[in-house]
Amino acid sequence: MSQQSEYSEGDLRNTGMSLKHDREWDYELERIVDEIDDRDAAKVGLQFPEGLKRRGPKVADDLRERVRDDVTIMLSGQPCYGACDLDTYLMKRTDVFVHFGHSPMKDTDKVIYVPLFSNVDVTPIMEEALETLADPDDDPEVGLVTTAQHMNLYEEMREFLEERGYDVDSRRGDERLTHEGQVLGCNYASADVPANQILYVGGGKFHPLGLAMEHPDKHVVIADPVNNVVTVADTEKFMKQRYGAIHRAMDAEKWGVIFCTKIGQGRWEQAQDILDENDDAYLITMDEVTPDRLRNFDMDAFVNTGCPRITTDDGPQFHKPMLTPGEYEIAVGHEPLDSLEFDTFHGTW
Amino acid sequence: MSQQSEYSEGDLRNTGMSLKHDREWDYELERIVDEIDDRDAAKVGLQFPEGLKRRGPKVADDLRERVRDDVTIMLSGQPCYGACDLDTYLMKRTDVFVHFGHSPMKDTDKVIYVPLFSNVDVTPIMEEALETLADPDDDPEVGLVTTAQHMNLYEEMREFLEERGYDVDSRRGDERLTHEGQVLGCNYASADVPANQILYVGGGKFHPLGLAMEHPDKHVVIADPVNNVVTVADTEKFMKQRYGAIHRAMDAEKWGVIFCTKIGQGRWEQAQDILDENDDAYLITMDEVTPDRLRNFDMDAFVNTGCPRITTDDGPQFHKPMLTPGEYEIAVGHEPLDSLEFDTFHGTW
Repeated sequence: MSQQSEYSEGDLRNTGMSLKHDREWDYELERIVDEIDDRDAAKVGLQFPEGLKRRGPKVADDLRERVRDDVTIMLSGQPCYGACDLDTYLMKRTDVFVHFGHSPMKDTDKVIYVPLFSNVDVTPIMEEALETLADPDDDPEVGLVTTAQHMNLYEEMREFLEERGYDVDSRRGDERLTHEGQVLGCNYASADVPANQILYVGGGKFHPLGLAMEHPDKHVVIADPVNNVVTVADTEKFMKQRYGAIHRAMDAEKWGVIFCTKIGQGRWEQAQDILDENDDAYLITMDEVTPDRLRNFDMDAFVNTGCPRITTDDGPQFHKPMLTPGEYEIAVGHEPLDSLEFDTFHGTW
Repeated sequence: MSQQSEYSEGDLRNTGMSLKHDREWDYELERIVDEIDDRDAAKVGLQFPEGLKRRGPKVADDLRERVRDDVTIMLSGQPCYGACDLDTYLMKRTDVFVHFGHSPMKDTDKVIYVPLFSNVDVTPIMEEALETLADPDDDPEVGLVTTAQHMNLYEEMREFLEERGYDVDSRRGDERLTHEGQVLGCNYASADVPANQILYVGGGKFHPLGLAMEHPDKHVVIADPVNNVVTVADTEKFMKQRYGAIHRAMDAEKWGVIFCTKIGQGRWEQAQDILDENDDAYLITMDEVTPDRLRNFDMDAFVNTGCPRITTDDGPQFHKPMLTPGEYEIAVGHEPLDSLEFDTFHGTW
């Protein structure tokens, strides 16, 4: 790999440079302005995920320059962690509601989704990742997945691999996913392919760690063009935490069963099933599932029917063991310990 | 004051005993059960304020013993800080929705309010408070206020004072308040009385500090039967913080204007007025107004049109100055510094 700029060489994860890396987003302002004009909108709501909230005021400025003076632009201050996590208050009270950073989870004209495609060049890091994939002469089959931010380059990624002798296994997954090859933090159905190795192209470890937990038999290679590093997903720490949480919950008498009220994170039937069969289970409803909010509930353990990544990634921060519905079944003795699977989320709302 | 039990003597605020003090709440279970039966309810939602959330599961147990097996009891896990702060998600999705710990802010059959009257005896601490009030021969007039928890003893309090020679000034306040003599953290209209001294009977300093800020010319005596202590409200620390925040915000260019989406905390017109006259103001909508949520917004200062107690009590925890609408007018030069008033909240929703 040739040196392209002062930022293009080396692993940037701990340098503070990763966020300064050459990234620009396309906010698709003209598409939004057209919708505002078409609908003669008076109120426009903008929702950004946490990592992009800082850009909100600038985007509001850019829109205000382009629309009538009497249009009110409203920025959602609610936390947002996915396409599942719409600010429904704002959505219902604005004429145009724009959700940035994610691709549509459901086909609806109530929401304008602006996925924010990244302009980061993925080929240098894919070149580097070849060393970590099997040689195509030994095992040519490779699954290829990415996130909403890089979907615009998916065909380029596929061609890159095919030109080097790989057979790319690719599928769309289920209805929760918009695009072929797309993964979400809670859904890796696009990696349900025969290949033994999966190449994930995208920023961070959040998505590939879920992928590796969902597919423990596959070799998951992470080509991260944002932090400029290639790694292999290692789930050992997470799996130890999951088994630890299950064991600590085995003696629990009082269970808090969390039903998440976020539009795309509710699994009512799973919550109801647990309540029906366990007299010591209490249903707790909430949108943000945080350690602070649960500390006031004097339970021995919790089972979270909402976002599985709260359970697996934030689990150790809660004051009592926090399990997925499948882990709950193990802890109460309905299922054997070796039935442990990563909790995934399907369907929309 | 005679010694009634091992817990009845002395200031309990720093002993950890205050919470063990002889308090029992009346959850009015029979009233709730009657409503469940009358409405043939399938889903029942229970909402408790933060300090009482721990009691939720026990109340759910007590209800489950008294209702049909197929009734689902749901506990709200949303933070709750007042009658203004209804879990509208749960309210809309349950047949019976019970809000504990506050008196009604609005007359509606969508909510069953159970105020949770305290059984703490208030006369010993009122006896002690007499030393801190003016002698009735010198100044017999006294305002009398309390919170929802002690409203059931309001007439007893009034008689206690009248028997000792005081003239009790009492009024209901405005429509945000249910009872004569009741105060809220954001509304002290019931203390708009001629008396120069106000006796507050109730737990904690939250309410009387607001009262003293709203009525800086009055002598506010706190008779706290929960912590067993009499003090005089002192607003100096708070007032210094308010002036400090205003001064730090005077150079602000970019303003975040917070509109709170909680049902009883929205002041849309005040937010809109600021936006209309300030091109560098950005409207941010949210339910919980927390330092974490605002840290992602790169503003120089914030003006909070929602709960004024977030602004005054939590203000120093935010990364940038957080002002009330009135303080904003001072900071931007529309009003003089000496126009500073405590921000109160009127009306319902």
